[in-house]
Amino acid sequence: MNLLATNPVASGPERFLSLSQLLANLVIIYLASKAGGELAFRLKQPTVLGELVAGLVVGISGLQWINPEQPVLGLLAQVGVILLLFEIGLESNLKSLLKVGPQALTVGLVGMTVPFVLGFAVMKGMGNPDLVSIFVGASMTATSIGVTAKVLSDLGYLKRTEGKIVLGAAVFDDIFGVVILSVVSGLASGTSLDAFNLLRVVGTSLGFLIGAIVVGNWAIPFFIQLVKLLRTRGELLTASLIFAFSLAYLAEQLGSAAIIGAFAAGLVLAETDRRHEVEQRLQPVTDFFLPIFFIVVGAEVNLALLNNQEALILSLGLTLTAIVGKVVCGYAAFGTQANKLAIGVAMVARGEVGLIFASVGLSTGVFTRAVHAAVVLMVILTTFLGPLLLSFILKSQKMLGSKH
Amino acid sequence: MNLLATNPVASGPERFLSLSQLLANLVIIYLASKAGGELAFRLKQPTVLGELVAGLVVGISGLQWINPEQPVLGLLAQVGVILLLFEIGLESNLKSLLKVGPQALTVGLVGMTVPFVLGFAVMKGMGNPDLVSIFVGASMTATSIGVTAKVLSDLGYLKRTEGKIVLGAAVFDDIFGVVILSVVSGLASGTSLDAFNLLRVVGTSLGFLIGAIVVGNWAIPFFIQLVKLLRTRGELLTASLIFAFSLAYLAEQLGSAAIIGAFAAGLVLAETDRRHEVEQRLQPVTDFFLPIFFIVVGAEVNLALLNNQEALILSLGLTLTAIVGKVVCGYAAFGTQANKLAIGVAMVARGEVGLIFASVGLSTGVFTRAVHAAVVLMVILTTFLGPLLLSFILKSQKMLGSKH
Repeated sequence: MNLLATNPVASGPERFLSLSQLLANLVIIYLASKAGGELAFRLKQPTVLGELVAGLVVGISGLQWINPEQPVLGLLAQVGVILLLFEIGLESNLKSLLKVGPQALTVGLVGMTVPFVLGFAVMKGMGNPDLVSIFVGASMTATSIGVTAKVLSDLGYLKRTEGKIVLGAAVFDDIFGVVILSVVSGLASGTSLDAFNLLRVVGTSLGFLIGAIVVGNWAIPFFIQLVKLLRTRGELLTASLIFAFSLAYLAEQLGSAAIIGAFAAGLVLAETDRRHEVEQRLQPVTDFFLPIFFIVVGAEVNLALLNNQEALILSLGLTLTAIVGKVVCGYAAFGTQANKLAIGVAMVARGEVGLIFASVGLSTGVFTRAVHAAVVLMVILTTFLGPLLLSFILKSQKMLGSKH
Repeated sequence: MNLLATNPVASGPERFLSLSQLLANLVIIYLASKAGGELAFRLKQPTVLGELVAGLVVGISGLQWINPEQPVLGLLAQVGVILLLFEIGLESNLKSLLKVGPQALTVGLVGMTVPFVLGFAVMKGMGNPDLVSIFVGASMTATSIGVTAKVLSDLGYLKRTEGKIVLGAAVFDDIFGVVILSVVSGLASGTSLDAFNLLRVVGTSLGFLIGAIVVGNWAIPFFIQLVKLLRTRGELLTASLIFAFSLAYLAEQLGSAAIIGAFAAGLVLAETDRRHEVEQRLQPVTDFFLPIFFIVVGAEVNLALLNNQEALILSLGLTLTAIVGKVVCGYAAFGTQANKLAIGVAMVARGEVGLIFASVGLSTGVFTRAVHAAVVLMVILTTFLGPLLLSFILKSQKMLGSKH
């Protein structure tokens, strides 16, 4: 508890942020996020795109005012995505999500398989070993749920069929991403594939999501009654955070992802009559944390990677493959009038999961520096191109539609 | 950006929190804070007292579920106090604070001088050297602005004359606390007193507060106009946070304390017509961070110190001295009908500043382990006794009053 500037007892690892540094970082992040977001809004683009570009400007490729590898910023950014997914869950309707469940599952599976196969084929065709090709393919599978959810929200598509299918597919995507990661990590360290373990990982992840929703729906009336007994300030927000963070923690412990737990918590709370009150109190907290996530993601972009010609050409190829692979999956949304091209394009943005694959590939010696750089660049390019393409497609189709 | 539980690339100093650990810590903190707060509320005590006790229960003297030395928790706790002071500033009225300015200044100065002299005399009378006695006296000077502001708010006393005088005195107290710290740190390291430097430190701290308010009041209409131009979500909250965190950062850089800057930012924004909107959006964010502060403060309490008999006796003596020293200062509130006993008692709680003195005393070799433990115990006891005494006095006087 050091509240004095001249505190002489402050110490710790050099990379640890002091209070002054944290305040300065937050001011820069908020200024950049608002500048980028407002600019994008005026250019009729999703605000998240502006925030990502602003992050690029203040990050390692630009002014270097923000160090995206700062662990405290990374942690706060993760809290931001957890709160985003909790809020998205709150705004969603479980029944109408379940209605598009089969489509979402199909889109999710096709959207993982096609990029994987295409990525594998491209690398294999260039004469790379199996393991490298598998790793590259795997790194192209998972959609960035944070970026995708925010783009859909920015464009007002969360409550439309397209939005619901994409959200569901991205959630499945994330669940299977954990499975694929454990498989390829096993391959890289030389352990053999174990069908039983694979099923176990898939089972716990899917089981958690279903279990959390079933148990949550049963428990939520008691929870709401309990909250009504509280008399001190902030009772509804604090209780909701306890609920969301508990499920997020549980999801992590069971080998799923924290954001899946937070999303489940939101879905469950959305069924109660306190839904709008929770949303209203949660929004300012999300507004505190979420800009940290998008600025950090943008700040991580290292444009110096473009200097390596081999990496650049490879990454352009992979990016094209990554886009095609996801665009195709939109057409797996069977039996619906929804805009299939928009669904596919909405899935394009890759994110944190792709970057983790790249890190594992490099650290286990599977990737050369050039391949690693190419994969990282592919993730970056899809993150920026996804929102851009989606808003372009929706706008041009709206214009076409209005001409009819 | 590691959102997957099985992320194999996560690494860093062992003391650094993982996402899982942070989520678990937050759940424990919120549960403890609500349990303690609600219990205190039902016992008609200030909720902050319940939160501090709850922190004690989950902290190092109890269940050890929370490690108060965790740097990430410490940082988030400090953000909590900054937001609290910003909010207190927003709820305050600059003109009515200035009206009690002379009284607040007098109470603040008397409330530092008397405990210092008494503490010095007690230590000196026990045969301690000058330097030790000066250090102990100094550690008794500064009121805990966080605990005091929250208690006043809990009891609904922030807008009464007593509350305004106490708040003003606590702010002066904190400003002079920085000065005293630099003096005694200088003494401990053997450098001589330098009147010019002393004046410089006082001047920048007071000058910052006045300057921030004057410049802020001039600039705030432009700021409000600018915010009106923003079109993206969370614009008012983000802009207010930029303003508050900038002033907090500036205060730290100028050698004052971050909370003073945040308080000044609140005072300035309170003069605008967006005041209530900012308050409304800020409250959930404060509710996210502030419980971390009080639980961490409670968790830091080390009851094992009570096993050292010498330290225990000394600390009881110092605590009595510390209470008397502050109670006296209430009577320095001249020319007002306010409850002078309540003012003095409200100033009793010591906090982070006292703990910093204790740390410096120990690390420079001025304090023995026993004296260090006694000072830390004194800070702890006043933190708990202050809120308890205040609510007791206000209640017994109210009962007396209603009998008339």
